Amino acid sequence: MLQLSQEEAIKYNLNELADLIVSHYNLEQKLSEKLTLEEFLALISQATRNFIELVLGVNSDSLQQLFFNDPQILDLLPPNAQDQQIMQIFGMDKLRESMYYSLYSDGKMLRPALVFVGGLLTKAKLSDLLIAAMAIECIHTYSLIHDDLPAMDNDTYRRGKLTNHLVFGESMAILAGDALQTLGFSLLSSNQQLEAKQVLKQVQVLAYGAGHYGMCLGQALDILGDDLTLDKLKELGISQSKAELRLTQIHYRKTAFLIRSSILLGVYASNHAKGKDLERILSYWAYNLGLTFQIKDDILDVLGNEAEIGKPVGSDLVNHKLTYVSLYGLEQAQEKLNAKFVQTLEYVEQLENLFKENTEQEASLAITWLRDLTTFVVNRNK
Amino acid sequence: MLQLSQEEAIKYNLNELADLIVSHYNLEQKLSEKLTLEEFLALISQATRNFIELVLGVNSDSLQQLFFNDPQILDLLPPNAQDQQIMQIFGMDKLRESMYYSLYSDGKMLRPALVFVGGLLTKAKLSDLLIAAMAIECIHTYSLIHDDLPAMDNDTYRRGKLTNHLVFGESMAILAGDALQTLGFSLLSSNQQLEAKQVLKQVQVLAYGAGHYGMCLGQALDILGDDLTLDKLKELGISQSKAELRLTQIHYRKTAFLIRSSILLGVYASNHAKGKDLERILSYWAYNLGLTFQIKDDILDVLGNEAEIGKPVGSDLVNHKLTYVSLYGLEQAQEKLNAKFVQTLEYVEQLENLFKENTEQEASLAITWLRDLTTFVVNRNK
Repeated sequence: MLQLSQEEAIKYNLNELADLIVSHYNLEQKLSEKLTLEEFLALISQATRNFIELVLGVNSDSLQQLFFNDPQILDLLPPNAQDQQIMQIFGMDKLRESMYYSLYSDGKMLRPALVFVGGLLTKAKLSDLLIAAMAIECIHTYSLIHDDLPAMDNDTYRRGKLTNHLVFGESMAILAGDALQTLGFSLLSSNQQLEAKQVLKQVQVLAYGAGHYGMCLGQALDILGDDLTLDKLKELGISQSKAELRLTQIHYRKTAFLIRSSILLGVYASNHAKGKDLERILSYWAYNLGLTFQIKDDILDVLGNEAEIGKPVGSDLVNHKLTYVSLYGLEQAQEKLNAKFVQTLEYVEQLENLFKENTEQEASLAITWLRDLTTFVVNRNK
Repeated sequence: MLQLSQEEAIKYNLNELADLIVSHYNLEQKLSEKLTLEEFLALISQATRNFIELVLGVNSDSLQQLFFNDPQILDLLPPNAQDQQIMQIFGMDKLRESMYYSLYSDGKMLRPALVFVGGLLTKAKLSDLLIAAMAIECIHTYSLIHDDLPAMDNDTYRRGKLTNHLVFGESMAILAGDALQTLGFSLLSSNQQLEAKQVLKQVQVLAYGAGHYGMCLGQALDILGDDLTLDKLKELGISQSKAELRLTQIHYRKTAFLIRSSILLGVYASNHAKGKDLERILSYWAYNLGLTFQIKDDILDVLGNEAEIGKPVGSDLVNHKLTYVSLYGLEQAQEKLNAKFVQTLEYVEQLENLFKENTEQEASLAITWLRDLTTFVVNRNK
């Protein structure tokens, strides 16, 4: 773990900090080696977590300088109190603490890993990928904080620790989520090395996946689903296959869209030549993986062990939600999972075909990790 | 009011829709005339509201096409049900309705007006300004929706109508706010006419003003202030001037930062030549105006008439909040307001000096509107 004092940290801008992490973890070298999926995931999550620590683990003033180390911009800031004790009483650092609490986690960091897979396919610069990895993790984390709120799922634990609102209060949790969303866009747009055109594509694809076409719509459909129980749908004369359509809409929007954004954030970190074909294949892979992921979640929710999964077993059933298991039963849900898994792998094969002329070691390793990751999603126990 | 059917609306992309509004309201012509501030504000708010109506007043599917009218991207969307009735039962359009409810308002639209002032100074394209105007209004509106939530200010009315969560429920209001924030960034990044470098500066300045350096931090400080009453501060041995420092930090962050973002969004819509001087003057103007605005708000909160202001008089006092009036009394607060007003006007004068060689009618009109707007903020009764 690379650690910098406040005084050291503010000497660097965002790109330089990312470069430090890339060399500290020897990422160039490591990512050209035949790592197992587990090793690959561990490496990316360590590097991303360390980067998060450097960026958000400092105090608010340092953070400001990190992003805006243009002296002219700092000169434009409204006067800050110099008196640290007063600033502490005033709570100047509370919001950042709340953001950091949730963002710095030992979660799986699948989305950052996908950013790297996408970027390895297009030979993107690794430090640019690190910035995008933190950006997508900001968006994912904000959605978790808001999802856990009393008005939403009212959850007590997340990733094995108390949910944000139980530690910092409900209003601070709302704001921490809000500010993490902004930070995601702030990170992307503060990348001074990548060409503006590419950064803009990143901002677009992130907004598309996160917004009211994507993740937010998925959450909204999920919430509305509290009133659309299986019984209610029957009462309305909605067939089983149409009820499934509703489930798939939730899962596509809530999960798959942001998975697509993750991998395309990596792709767009380079002015790649593969063009629309690559985007198309990765998009379909992402949509299918997202669905696979959610069917598996539904199954785990019933089967899972509370200690392992970190939330009460069967909470979806208690909340009377429509799930693959409640709709089809466990056995048929498992069959649907398997079918979806096969379909998802087909896109990995298409990807392989697209790259078959390619002799780059990095790209072929990335495809292997993508295949293993697809399998991992289906086989995981939590 | 320009109205388009769903079928018409989806023929256009975002830039084309903005062009339609610019010509419908004859903005090129009108903004070169000596409009009064009132006429200027009315014109901008009408045009912005109409643009909002065209963009967000359609159904979700059309909206998706509007932003992403690349056939390839649409091809990549997960399958939508064609059955409109089913989609309605499923609530596919509920989130957009909730966003639209709050965004389409007869609020003053000061921030969109500031975008235009900034853009007229740098001869930006008017349709680009319209896109940025809607973007800043999205951010402002999301903050209002979240601010009104039960966990925050728990307000019942906003702009003369029920708050979002009372109409759509608390969870949907949280999501509508979230999605409006994303939409702000989505709008900017979907502008295909402005050069990428300029758009990126817009994304940066919006994120800076909205995020945890700016508006979110201001809100956080405001919330923490619930426990930092005047009595509490005295108990902690905090002097009056340091208590004022806390107030100014809240107001700078919560209000002034986004005002600065508004006017700079306009400036950045053109690759202007005035450079850092213009940014510096407008930033200081914005910081001072923001403070002026909030001192006035504190005074109005005590003096104001409930019917006029649209929320219960003295609600800040009931909540035991530190305000300029509670800290200094009404008379001294009024003196502070006047002093701040004079200071704010000094930056308008600096702006005039910067443009004195400039013979452009548009720029000199914009400066006049900025001066009148400064006066308006101080003299308003609600």
